[in-house]
Amino acid sequence: MAPGLRVGLLGYGVVGRGVAQILDARGDVEIRKILRHTPDKVTEARMTANADEILDDPDIDVIIECMGGLEPAHTYVMRAMQAGKHVVTANKKMLATHIIEIAAACETLDKKCRFEACVGGGIPWIHEILHIRRIDAVTSFRGIFNGTTNYILTRMTEEHASFAEVLAQAQAMGFAEQDPTDDVDGFDARYKGVLTCAAAFGRVPDPEEVPTFGIRGIAPCDLDYARVHGRVIKLVARGSFDGGRLALTVVPTMVREKDPLASVHDNFNGMEAESTTLGRSFYAGQGAGSLPTAHAMVQDLLSIPHPYSIDVHPSGKLAKRPAVYYVRGAKRGPLAELTAQDTGAAILTKPVSLQELKEHLVPEEGQKVFAAEIES
Amino acid sequence: MAPGLRVGLLGYGVVGRGVAQILDARGDVEIRKILRHTPDKVTEARMTANADEILDDPDIDVIIECMGGLEPAHTYVMRAMQAGKHVVTANKKMLATHIIEIAAACETLDKKCRFEACVGGGIPWIHEILHIRRIDAVTSFRGIFNGTTNYILTRMTEEHASFAEVLAQAQAMGFAEQDPTDDVDGFDARYKGVLTCAAAFGRVPDPEEVPTFGIRGIAPCDLDYARVHGRVIKLVARGSFDGGRLALTVVPTMVREKDPLASVHDNFNGMEAESTTLGRSFYAGQGAGSLPTAHAMVQDLLSIPHPYSIDVHPSGKLAKRPAVYYVRGAKRGPLAELTAQDTGAAILTKPVSLQELKEHLVPEEGQKVFAAEIES
Repeated sequence: MAPGLRVGLLGYGVVGRGVAQILDARGDVEIRKILRHTPDKVTEARMTANADEILDDPDIDVIIECMGGLEPAHTYVMRAMQAGKHVVTANKKMLATHIIEIAAACETLDKKCRFEACVGGGIPWIHEILHIRRIDAVTSFRGIFNGTTNYILTRMTEEHASFAEVLAQAQAMGFAEQDPTDDVDGFDARYKGVLTCAAAFGRVPDPEEVPTFGIRGIAPCDLDYARVHGRVIKLVARGSFDGGRLALTVVPTMVREKDPLASVHDNFNGMEAESTTLGRSFYAGQGAGSLPTAHAMVQDLLSIPHPYSIDVHPSGKLAKRPAVYYVRGAKRGPLAELTAQDTGAAILTKPVSLQELKEHLVPEEGQKVFAAEIES
Repeated sequence: MAPGLRVGLLGYGVVGRGVAQILDARGDVEIRKILRHTPDKVTEARMTANADEILDDPDIDVIIECMGGLEPAHTYVMRAMQAGKHVVTANKKMLATHIIEIAAACETLDKKCRFEACVGGGIPWIHEILHIRRIDAVTSFRGIFNGTTNYILTRMTEEHASFAEVLAQAQAMGFAEQDPTDDVDGFDARYKGVLTCAAAFGRVPDPEEVPTFGIRGIAPCDLDYARVHGRVIKLVARGSFDGGRLALTVVPTMVREKDPLASVHDNFNGMEAESTTLGRSFYAGQGAGSLPTAHAMVQDLLSIPHPYSIDVHPSGKLAKRPAVYYVRGAKRGPLAELTAQDTGAAILTKPVSLQELKEHLVPEEGQKVFAAEIES
């Protein structure tokens, strides 16, 4: 990007402050304006509580959106592009929901919308995928995209503590939200899986259609079962595309102890791509945090002149991918192949898709259901 | 790179063939000429055994050097740059030895010399470091840069086999050279460490000055000792730069079982960088092989227009970095702090530098010395 680039910052939370810290220390980018929610937070000359002052300012070249939430972020991003501005966003939920519309606007208006910070925080995951695609077709990916659940799973494994205890501890430390639904039920990982599909395959499903199973029902006995069998439980988003149908799932997965994903601890993220000539490549690092995420946004800003762009189409109906599952706390039903184990859990000996599994899992009286794919 | 780019390929071994396979499948790059060693290998119209036909061809824009060895590769690279050509090389030994001269020629002649394939095969390690440096200072790195020794260590650990047995097996499978010195004595990792210092810090030592200790003396009891203590032994190159003195060592290291480096198995490579805002980021993948290495060279080719360049200066004398070592098979000498262990090995309770350690290790009668840093 040419020195003298002028930026409007939408949002001044943990990430927005990190972006300002990095950019203010450089000489080549000017933050012209910063949007704050309310007039009482306007404490610097460059701050405003009026978004129009930023979106209508012809002297702003790029919008850096780190406000979060669907609206008004979505409206602001569309308005900014229509006003001739590029966009850098960290808002995975908004982008995963509106990516078809936003990618079409990028194409029509010849603007860039970069989203490295949406997925894997400081890890240059989206960049690497686009980089690989200069040469290869990416055929599949899998990864730990949510730091909160990975922190919970790590602590439960190491301290043999209950889900509720560790969640409370994570909330006290600020690693988990007061309403942890987005994280523990897998929705956050789902948005990131959708955005990875956009970068890797140019195909995206409706996020609501992605079969998703979280870790809310997990108990120490599940982690014990995994350990005894040389496995570790991780919340994994996994996508693949063979040129025809797209598959994407988010589900707790028993990975082998020697799997690189098993070495991703605490609130770190880690992901692996597979492509035609490069084979498997693995990336890990900070999945969130002020400066790592801000680093990703500044990288996006510096990369706006790069030719990378994504051509995104709706995937249509997702493919079903049969797998073998571990299940605990569900009634015997149509999935009658359940085999009893000493933990009170069962292994579905006949592979089923996550779609089918979710349909047929009915909790037993007073039990929480937990299911995990057993990686083949 | 503009379509229509014209390439001269020096060398047509495993990597050269991979490069030709990828480029021939694309429409945007023409391989004008390929250098073969001897006239009897000239089996295609674009092949020649005469390097002048390539180096003097004004219609060749970029030389892709995958011949290996110090000479004539070094002379050819210098001649190519003087003739106005960019260079992409996979020749770590040549580049680590001549990088000061070659970087100066890049500067003077306004040419690029890209070397992703020299370090970590298909892993975009050099690219990532240069990418991070757009924003951050890189402060340190460590990694498993040699696939052959990692394969040997993995097999010894899993099969409880001797070094000699596993080396013979690796040689039979083509994972190790008939003369394995460069790999098992750490020289290959040393070249890669030197080139990482160039990219990360802009400072390089004379490769001969880098304290290096290989795995030739390792025995199953060393791996047992590590396992009992929750460690795994890996051959690690580790560098750091604080703005003053550069430190670089190559030495077997007992890393914790939970360390990401411990999850790098078989002939894979894995490396970690630490930088100011991004924190720790970790990369792993194929460290060698025809197509992954060729992929890296084609990435370099496509990235020639990027502004990334390295400004490299001699580091001067390397800093000493004290560490705690495990030592087996050495006589008690000036390092009298040796503490006997049940394996016949000892732990140096007082931290010493690898430089000092190497000076004072005298083999016991009929023993091979093995030493490993115990990661703090």
